Amino acid sequence: MDEFLMAALQEARAGLRENGIPIGSVLVVDGEIIARGHNRRIQNGSAILHAEMDCLERAGRLTAAEYSRSVLYSTLSPCDMCSGAALLYKIPRIVVGENQTFQGPEAYVRSRGVKLDIVNDPACIELMEHFIATHPTLWNEDIGLPTDY
Amino acid sequence: MDEFLMAALQEARAGLRENGIPIGSVLVVDGEIIARGHNRRIQNGSAILHAEMDCLERAGRLTAAEYSRSVLYSTLSPCDMCSGAALLYKIPRIVVGENQTFQGPEAYVRSRGVKLDIVNDPACIELMEHFIATHPTLWNEDIGLPTDY
Repeated sequence: MDEFLMAALQEARAGLRENGIPIGSVLVVDGEIIARGHNRRIQNGSAILHAEMDCLERAGRLTAAEYSRSVLYSTLSPCDMCSGAALLYKIPRIVVGENQTFQGPEAYVRSRGVKLDIVNDPACIELMEHFIATHPTLWNEDIGLPTDY
Repeated sequence: MDEFLMAALQEARAGLRENGIPIGSVLVVDGEIIARGHNRRIQNGSAILHAEMDCLERAGRLTAAEYSRSVLYSTLSPCDMCSGAALLYKIPRIVVGENQTFQGPEAYVRSRGVKLDIVNDPACIELMEHFIATHPTLWNEDIGLPTDY
């Protein structure tokens, strides 16, 4: 596996060890990881700290020039919010661990000029399949679906 | 002015008093404000706490049923990130103070079924016009544009 996607997967697993939702992300600029993040819905009681958002927040206030040389890695296809954050900052490329268990607005993101590489890595898929099967209510909350079913 | 848009404008002005970017937001559920927020780029060194994001974060972990009965107010047209957050949680209506100084992906948001009401309130416009004229670099950073011009 790509070393940066591996780093994102390590973040996802770190989230799982904290009893959180196992999605991880890293931001790479000029070939180096400048920030790592993971979903913190449980840990922080957060409605906005999806993995990619946590990663972008930890990267701090970057310049447009830095974002223009960045690649965002996520273990899972970015949702509407996280895709929107990438569009705001004109991040030119997103590498996605998998889009089999969830798929964000990929066609729209591509239509806005972002290069989206879908890896569909078996370890990323297995991690989410297991989590969704064992925590369906929490998972639905995280993607904005009803939990009272 | 609508009482909820007024509350969002008060948040924007609170942000300005903190030397922050003057954009405010409130989330209304069942006719009551349940959270208020404002842009905290300066205050928190944040890359993700636009007004709407700050407001959604302060609202905490809501259910899909609560979001489905909510209205998001913002003094300024929501950017790609904040629009995406509203789409994630299927917030059915957004009331926008103005879209004259900045315009987010309004057509796309409407195409996804969100009712977008643009007020173009003179006080909201004047607040942003003054801020952008006096802080162009900071403003460009906030919307992902180059600052080294």
